[in-house]
Amino acid sequence: MPDIRALFFDVFGTVVDWRSSIARETEILLHPFNGGIDWFAFADAWRGEYQPAMTEVREGRIPFCKLDVLHRKNLERILPRFGLGSVPEDVLVNLNRAWHRLDGWPDSAPGLTRLKRKFMIAPVSNGNISLMVALARRNGFPWDAILGSEIAGDFKPKPRVYLAACEALDLKPSQCMMVAAHPSDLVAAAACGLRTGFVARPNEHGPGKGAKPPAGPVDVAATSLEDLATKLGI
Amino acid sequence: MPDIRALFFDVFGTVVDWRSSIARETEILLHPFNGGIDWFAFADAWRGEYQPAMTEVREGRIPFCKLDVLHRKNLERILPRFGLGSVPEDVLVNLNRAWHRLDGWPDSAPGLTRLKRKFMIAPVSNGNISLMVALARRNGFPWDAILGSEIAGDFKPKPRVYLAACEALDLKPSQCMMVAAHPSDLVAAAACGLRTGFVARPNEHGPGKGAKPPAGPVDVAATSLEDLATKLGI
Repeated sequence: MPDIRALFFDVFGTVVDWRSSIARETEILLHPFNGGIDWFAFADAWRGEYQPAMTEVREGRIPFCKLDVLHRKNLERILPRFGLGSVPEDVLVNLNRAWHRLDGWPDSAPGLTRLKRKFMIAPVSNGNISLMVALARRNGFPWDAILGSEIAGDFKPKPRVYLAACEALDLKPSQCMMVAAHPSDLVAAAACGLRTGFVARPNEHGPGKGAKPPAGPVDVAATSLEDLATKLGI
Repeated sequence: MPDIRALFFDVFGTVVDWRSSIARETEILLHPFNGGIDWFAFADAWRGEYQPAMTEVREGRIPFCKLDVLHRKNLERILPRFGLGSVPEDVLVNLNRAWHRLDGWPDSAPGLTRLKRKFMIAPVSNGNISLMVALARRNGFPWDAILGSEIAGDFKPKPRVYLAACEALDLKPSQCMMVAAHPSDLVAAAACGLRTGFVARPNEHGPGKGAKPPAGPVDVAATSLEDLATKLGI
């Protein structure tokens, strides 16, 4: 694939391990209010509200807003289910910022550093710019730019998000590759004309839970971002 | 200033030496068509069309577009003045990309690298995202994000450009500092509530041409980005 100029990355699950990080952060902040919670179940419940919340925006029922705003609404929706109906506002604010404190998979920073030698690299995530900047600073992700939902004004898998990223770099979709652990993201990117790179993240939903294989043909399939770099000739 | 969280940078003139770079690039590409040109005068003429072209957008007479598009229009406007009315299209395309091949001032990359240790750093330039990415990759500018005109949909010194940058990072204007060699940029940023950092670039318009001093009080005045890092306690 000699004409690929830019790699776009899904972030939650593909570049960072949201589940372990959210379980850790929520336990630290909420244990004083309820010590009997399965914090992985809490993380899964919070993440479970993610797609339905974005659908409200995608289908035009509410205007576009930063993912931080949706995370906060989703948090308020699930807290009562865990017997956490009266957490103070300052704790809620800090808790919502847990999404700014996610850890990368071990191969992410070194893999991105290698990939940047040959390609422009940018997140094309549903996360907002400030969230992406926080994750990059925390983990040493050397992005060339922060693209994704906030510059597009919509959420993946809407075509506008992929196309806005290509346009920001003056590239045709065929010169860009979407890299993700999630088949639905790759299917949507391919429909816009982008190349696709699948990265297996079998532990995203917990050890041994497995990961969905790509739903259709992909241009490259890798086991990590380091492996992706090797397979792209770096 | 303990509450400053982000530094925003003007780029043309403040971080990169556009004049020497454009003179070099235009000589390389246009010398075969006319060997008798003062290439610094050519650079000055091209840059001279910069503010008037953006004013068309600022005042709503034409819709927002990437600065690359304005640079191309401006190039076509000045070529006949230099006896260059029949340059082939492929040369014009390459020539317009000269703005993607500007060199930083010697202190820029090391100064930004130091400043990033303590602050989020982003260009808030009238240049488009792809142009900013190209300059960063060429010169090793370690930006956290590319902010500026393209995410705001307007050009400095319109308030929207400064405020969109603050909002992208979830910061109040008072938590952000605009850094520029141009007093007009700092006056406009201050009017939006941002802090201001002046960096002297006495050679921007040619050796010994001098630089405008800040038109009003600034929070910090420095002689380089390395000096700015020192003055901000890094």
